[in-house]
Amino acid sequence: MHEVFDAVLGTNLLHANQHLADDNRAHFDKHGIYCVNIMSGPGAGKTSLLEKTLVALKVDWQVAVIEGDMTTQLDAERLRATGVPVVAINTGRACHLDAKMVHGGLHQLGNLDQLDCLIVENVGNLVCPAEFEVGEHCKVALLSITEGEDKPLKYPLMFHEANCIVVTKLDLAPYLDIDLAQLEANLQDVNPKAPVFWISSKTGVGVVDWLRWLTQRIEVSRLLAVVH
Amino acid sequence: MHEVFDAVLGTNLLHANQHLADDNRAHFDKHGIYCVNIMSGPGAGKTSLLEKTLVALKVDWQVAVIEGDMTTQLDAERLRATGVPVVAINTGRACHLDAKMVHGGLHQLGNLDQLDCLIVENVGNLVCPAEFEVGEHCKVALLSITEGEDKPLKYPLMFHEANCIVVTKLDLAPYLDIDLAQLEANLQDVNPKAPVFWISSKTGVGVVDWLRWLTQRIEVSRLLAVVH
Repeated sequence: MHEVFDAVLGTNLLHANQHLADDNRAHFDKHGIYCVNIMSGPGAGKTSLLEKTLVALKVDWQVAVIEGDMTTQLDAERLRATGVPVVAINTGRACHLDAKMVHGGLHQLGNLDQLDCLIVENVGNLVCPAEFEVGEHCKVALLSITEGEDKPLKYPLMFHEANCIVVTKLDLAPYLDIDLAQLEANLQDVNPKAPVFWISSKTGVGVVDWLRWLTQRIEVSRLLAVVH
Repeated sequence: MHEVFDAVLGTNLLHANQHLADDNRAHFDKHGIYCVNIMSGPGAGKTSLLEKTLVALKVDWQVAVIEGDMTTQLDAERLRATGVPVVAINTGRACHLDAKMVHGGLHQLGNLDQLDCLIVENVGNLVCPAEFEVGEHCKVALLSITEGEDKPLKYPLMFHEANCIVVTKLDLAPYLDIDLAQLEANLQDVNPKAPVFWISSKTGVGVVDWLRWLTQRIEVSRLLAVVH
């Protein structure tokens, strides 16, 4: 978050965003949609993990994606290749998706009654997206092991707020000087509650565990929608 | 940049920052200091490159660092181990350094007449720091090859504004699927003017070319200070 903005108007604008986020969540709940907000720094592998995730989810569920990028449709195109509907939102100079942008994306998606799960891929930024809820039921923070074991300590808000942490690019471990035990300890330090999945989208290792966690949550969300 | 902030107050606040940045630059020029603003996403290797850079620069020059991090002194400690003075600025929730923070850092550095070069290591963020000048004479954007060849297109402001681009972690190329020729073309597309250095801080490859470029600019800055 920009400091001056925070000092002058921050509380009110965050409050306004939270109000819209709550509206979005009520909308999701009404339609029985489980919403996931995927966040990370640039190039940590959000889109690569989503390519695998969408192919798996679409076997049993109706899934859609709202894809946030400052410019380009590059990631949206990659995800459309899975056959899942993708709404691309270009944020221009904005460094994160907010609740209003996601609300606009929902209108583009059309009939929400058919949808089981909405995945929001946020702008690649380890700082600002953590400040702005979009109405999600869970926040997933990705961290590539190429970024170093110190990152949970240096960007604590993102990892503290996450309901689930996915450590990516595990296939590169033999070629890096990273101390994975220290990374695990740092994650535990910042967020002792969130499950941590250690994966490589390239080799597939760990991806099933992530999918099992995610599908269980979608399933419970669907059951709750039926019961209520 | 946060969109609402941009729409409501952005111009004025950017203008205020620019005014302070101009003051900083006048201050640098008065003291014959060459100021470099180093920016990248999290974990692209700013601190690793600076560890090598400071050790080399301090042989001939008086160098200091202003180190921006949201929290922790981890990077500041790493750079202090080189023997160079480092002022650490914790930005809290702020996603970038601004001219006011750097001005505050200058006061902590003390006697500026002895200084030849000030290096500002910005917060790890490929979006927001590009918007806020701090008074620097040159902007250096780092990009790790682990982040993917599409990043210059997806984060165009950072790479467009850069006076120099350093592509890092070249030692990992054999283990990645990245298309380096496409990365080079994408950088050229966004910024045809800036020199691009391809380096690995781990093996040292390419670091001398970067140092040659940087030291030439510090040297010219010192000569200009003597002539005027």
